[in-house]
Amino acid sequence: MLSERLLKDIDFIVELDKMKSVLRQTSLIDNSKRENDAEHSWHISVMALVLAEYANEKIDICKVIKMLLVHDLVEIYAGDTFCYDKQANMNKRERELKAADKIFGMLDEDKGSELRRLWEEFEEMKTKEAIFAASMDRLQPFFNNYYSGGGTWKKFNIPKGEVYKRIAPLKEASDELWQIAINMIEDACRKGYITDN
Amino acid sequence: MLSERLLKDIDFIVELDKMKSVLRQTSLIDNSKRENDAEHSWHISVMALVLAEYANEKIDICKVIKMLLVHDLVEIYAGDTFCYDKQANMNKRERELKAADKIFGMLDEDKGSELRRLWEEFEEMKTKEAIFAASMDRLQPFFNNYYSGGGTWKKFNIPKGEVYKRIAPLKEASDELWQIAINMIEDACRKGYITDN
Ligand SMILES: [Ca+2]
Repeated sequence: MLSERLLKDIDFIVELDKMKSVLRQTSLIDNSKRENDAEHSWHISVMALVLAEYANEKIDICKVIKMLLVHDLVEIYAGDTFCYDKQANMNKRERELKAADKIFGMLDEDKGSELRRLWEEFEEMKTKEAIFAASMDRLQPFFNNYYSGGGTWKKFNIPKGEVYKRIAPLKEASDELWQIAINMIEDACRKGYITDN
Repeated sequence: MLSERLLKDIDFIVELDKMKSVLRQTSLIDNSKRENDAEHSWHISVMALVLAEYANEKIDICKVIKMLLVHDLVEIYAGDTFCYDKQANMNKRERELKAADKIFGMLDEDKGSELRRLWEEFEEMKTKEAIFAASMDRLQPFFNNYYSGGGTWKKFNIPKGEVYKRIAPLKEASDELWQIAINMIEDACRKGYITDN
């Protein structure tokens, strides 16, 4: 006899496959295509592993990675909301809450709640793990923009102030990584990837 | 002053972007495209999180996930070797060892070794964490084949014996998941996804 619980887990795992079709604005560094949520979630999880040593405070890296693995699941239904799109960001929270009910509700209550709590902690950005996780989430498209010759910064004429605002959690997460980010932003300005404002 | 170590880490993170272009044989469940290594690595990492409770032995899930996040990095240079391609599998080990020197060698020795040890543990498939991780690595394309109407099983006329051989680590990893796999294989045979042999 197969348990109802396990059958729900498998339905959930099958549903996760859709993350591979949720397109983000960010492109690969070689500019060959736009990346999707599954690729992005993997990239930032490995980044967290590699960059954990630069965290200002001692962090539970296992929790950070779990957060990063599930932080975008709501986008299966809510879609990816481009960080610099002010209009779309106005109803983002509402759309994502509904999506969270749906995706985490596929699992048995205890398991669904456990994963949902990771997503909520990430969203609230209060704990040191959530701040570090948010920093990875923002630093990866930042790197992709910088190393691909401007990416979405250039495409959408993003001004310097907006880039600083977006990457701000990194300042709290890590002094060393923050220094790198400042250098890159100033260099991106000089190169015309970001508009000076 | 930016440390050499951090600059190496960033080069490594930039190199990881190539995982999004390493195509696997497996297709998405909706048959819209073939998946790549970054997508696959993310999917199996979340699967491990969801299915850990079914492990026969108590496992360190954090270690399992770290292993899964890096288990395919060598494929940036060695390419994905299709599990049912006997020819390509003959020199797989040699190609991947060379690739491992290259990718893990990008990092400072201590950090490169730490990640390489995770890859080696995964490859040796001896510890309970490695056996569980290998099971996830094999179960995900198995699910994708089953739920997409046959996938690579059907495309390459894979016989039942080969499918059982490929999924074998799951038998040791989890009684409940093994039972599901048996049911699916027998059903896939009835449906003509797998040839009966
Ligand atoms: Ca592989």
